Amino acid sequence: MKMIERAAEIAGAWAAVSPKTRAEVITGVADALDAAGTSLIEIADAETKLGTKRLTGELARTTFQMRLLAAESGSYYDVRIDRADPSWPPGPRPELRRYRTAVGPVLVFAASNFPFAFSVAGGDTASAWVAGCSVVVKAHPGHPELSRRTASIIEDALGRWGALLGLIEGEAAGVEALRHPAIAAAAFTGSVAGGLALARIAAERPVPIPFHGELGSVNPVIVLPGAARTRADELAAGYAGSLTMGNGQFCTNPGLVFAPSSSPFVDLVAERLRGIPATPFLNDRIASGFHTGAERLTAIPGVREVVSGAGARLLEIDLADFVPDVAEECFGPLGVIVRYSRLSDVLPVLAALPGQLTTTVHAQPEEASDVEALRPVLAGRSGRILWGGWPTGVAVTAAMQHGGPFPATTSPASTSVGTAAVERFLRPVSYQDWPSQLLPEPLRDDNPWNVPQGFS
Amino acid sequence: MKMIERAAEIAGAWAAVSPKTRAEVITGVADALDAAGTSLIEIADAETKLGTKRLTGELARTTFQMRLLAAESGSYYDVRIDRADPSWPPGPRPELRRYRTAVGPVLVFAASNFPFAFSVAGGDTASAWVAGCSVVVKAHPGHPELSRRTASIIEDALGRWGALLGLIEGEAAGVEALRHPAIAAAAFTGSVAGGLALARIAAERPVPIPFHGELGSVNPVIVLPGAARTRADELAAGYAGSLTMGNGQFCTNPGLVFAPSSSPFVDLVAERLRGIPATPFLNDRIASGFHTGAERLTAIPGVREVVSGAGARLLEIDLADFVPDVAEECFGPLGVIVRYSRLSDVLPVLAALPGQLTTTVHAQPEEASDVEALRPVLAGRSGRILWGGWPTGVAVTAAMQHGGPFPATTSPASTSVGTAAVERFLRPVSYQDWPSQLLPEPLRDDNPWNVPQGFS
Repeated sequence: MKMIERAAEIAGAWAAVSPKTRAEVITGVADALDAAGTSLIEIADAETKLGTKRLTGELARTTFQMRLLAAESGSYYDVRIDRADPSWPPGPRPELRRYRTAVGPVLVFAASNFPFAFSVAGGDTASAWVAGCSVVVKAHPGHPELSRRTASIIEDALGRWGALLGLIEGEAAGVEALRHPAIAAAAFTGSVAGGLALARIAAERPVPIPFHGELGSVNPVIVLPGAARTRADELAAGYAGSLTMGNGQFCTNPGLVFAPSSSPFVDLVAERLRGIPATPFLNDRIASGFHTGAERLTAIPGVREVVSGAGARLLEIDLADFVPDVAEECFGPLGVIVRYSRLSDVLPVLAALPGQLTTTVHAQPEEASDVEALRPVLAGRSGRILWGGWPTGVAVTAAMQHGGPFPATTSPASTSVGTAAVERFLRPVSYQDWPSQLLPEPLRDDNPWNVPQGFS
Repeated sequence: MKMIERAAEIAGAWAAVSPKTRAEVITGVADALDAAGTSLIEIADAETKLGTKRLTGELARTTFQMRLLAAESGSYYDVRIDRADPSWPPGPRPELRRYRTAVGPVLVFAASNFPFAFSVAGGDTASAWVAGCSVVVKAHPGHPELSRRTASIIEDALGRWGALLGLIEGEAAGVEALRHPAIAAAAFTGSVAGGLALARIAAERPVPIPFHGELGSVNPVIVLPGAARTRADELAAGYAGSLTMGNGQFCTNPGLVFAPSSSPFVDLVAERLRGIPATPFLNDRIASGFHTGAERLTAIPGVREVVSGAGARLLEIDLADFVPDVAEECFGPLGVIVRYSRLSDVLPVLAALPGQLTTTVHAQPEEASDVEALRPVLAGRSGRILWGGWPTGVAVTAAMQHGGPFPATTSPASTSVGTAAVERFLRPVSYQDWPSQLLPEPLRDDNPWNVPQGFS
């Protein structure tokens, strides 16, 4: 495939330039995207119906993300230098210098729900570039024109590094690329079914490659009795907002809530959801998936439909009737509230849930010891745990973890958002007794790139 | 399985104690193993025929490794703390605190060739313990008594933490354990065939788990013309020693050498190998695998048998006759020397080799630019690259990388030797706006465990 050959040819040169040079090139791309913002947002809105306001914010997030990642000083190299030591036990040790270097060309599968932030110019592309990798993006069919236009602006901005981004289209091309021997790693954001199918292809290659798939989850929320008693209205307002934001089309959408049965929480949420007008879905496939998913959930014995509005749906079920199917993601503005009598009964249900991107607790300060009992389960089943607030809105920072235990993520040791996302596209290499002048720059004593180095 | 249930029950408590406490417990185990050294070495020698001298050194390496890993200050937590920032673009960011926490019970498949260092008390067990994980070891059938005795000494030394090590025996039990839902990760050192079969089982679980398999390689050595001209005798002596050390039963054994056809190197190596007496193999399976492998290699068109001794075998082939099968590992004291006329012809052959644990170059200072041309290929196909010296002997240090591209390793982003080995058994979790007093110790501002923390 031409795009992959191009990406493979340029990979070595890009990995070999300094973080500073890479930062300048990547920042140039961010500037070009910002400059083309008005026209890009117009195309995006026509294709995704997400609205100008949301898309403006998303583009800002996307170029901010690029600049933040590009500004990394090279800590991702994780440089470790062992001086030679004749007295090292159990035998003399040689000089060893280890760092993490680019894996090679990365294949990115774009998502539908973030046409900027998780698409052609998204976090996967930016973090692969920062790691020193070239990128081939399989465009999402939900926004083909935007994908082409974004790729064209990027290629112009890249100048002589134009081959760092290739765009391919169509499911068959995506699978062919995933099987291509020159592709060294893949990143994906999307559905569980799609992600698992691609993960299998990656694993069954003659040379398997890492597949970083972020597949979503139901992001449980646990409202503790004290919080429900004290601020049911505030929580209901927050929940209704988070559930319906972006028409519920977020992988961090809070689809499953555990609330005390004695609380007015369900009724208060229902009141707020009832009036919400219909918002267009990203595409017909997502719309029909939502309706099928809602029917499937409604048919579960014990599930009661509380709100069946045009713009939001709300179901409830008693904890005693809970079955694993209740926790299956229904992508869109649908929430299931599980009513419990005793918090201790919620614990085993949480522990048996599949891996989650996030879990949120709402508790009063005096309920701290109850949360402490929950914490090992929450941290064991999720990548991010929140005290208060809502899981939608994923800050791009150093300490963000966007990735949870399987099946929320196919590689739970990694994150797809935040500066640690760069680590996905690196592989360690040690140089033993190598002459100083032939070492890669990050490993040299004169440290020409001024990257963090650890000595022992 | 009882051993796994026991390991699962204790996992949470072990992950929750301080690195200092873990270090004390692990150091206690190292002390107990050293104290029992004489009897352990006796059992090991009876079962593996590796000899008292080698086994004494290996036990010292094993307990040193345990103490070195245990002394880690907690840098493996990779603590990142983001203060809340209302001005963070594109929207206010919450407080986020991220660290890496233990994945849960780890299954270790012991190797045959290092009955201490890669077995019950080996690097996989030590690094999993340091990460905060409990361990179940599937004993290698090559040294069952030693495995039982080691496990029993460890369990006594662990005291109330006795459940941190469980021993299981037999292939069926190993597979059953690998499929057990409570096992969170696995580590393996052994053959390509065995490792790939287990990796597939790990990947096909309802919840796939990371499988860190170190499967070995032929560890190419490239002797440059200048080095061959200047110090052929020294190189031949070094090579013969590395090739036959431990009867060649090391995953870093240098099985494939590229040497100039004009050099006396082959003859000099042959001279040294001819007189070497037979050394017993670790077991009959390895012995018969060696003989089958040698026959397979000898039958390749163009391969000439130079030495067919009782204790070592040497084959040669011209580069023009090279086929991929020449680079297939033959575990034992067998070397293949590929004779080349022009170094530039070696490059494409190296580039097409499967992933390697190590690659070594022998060059004179004035050949630096030739090595520079090779470097991207060497670093791209290997986990460790050596300038001079021999790949056998893997120092346990911070900067060691023991793991290369597939199929040398099933998870090339990790190492199975050195302090970075701990990272294999960790998974990141972010805490958002969590009350200070409920945070895990490594994330607290008062930092009670005194671990490295990064702020942004």
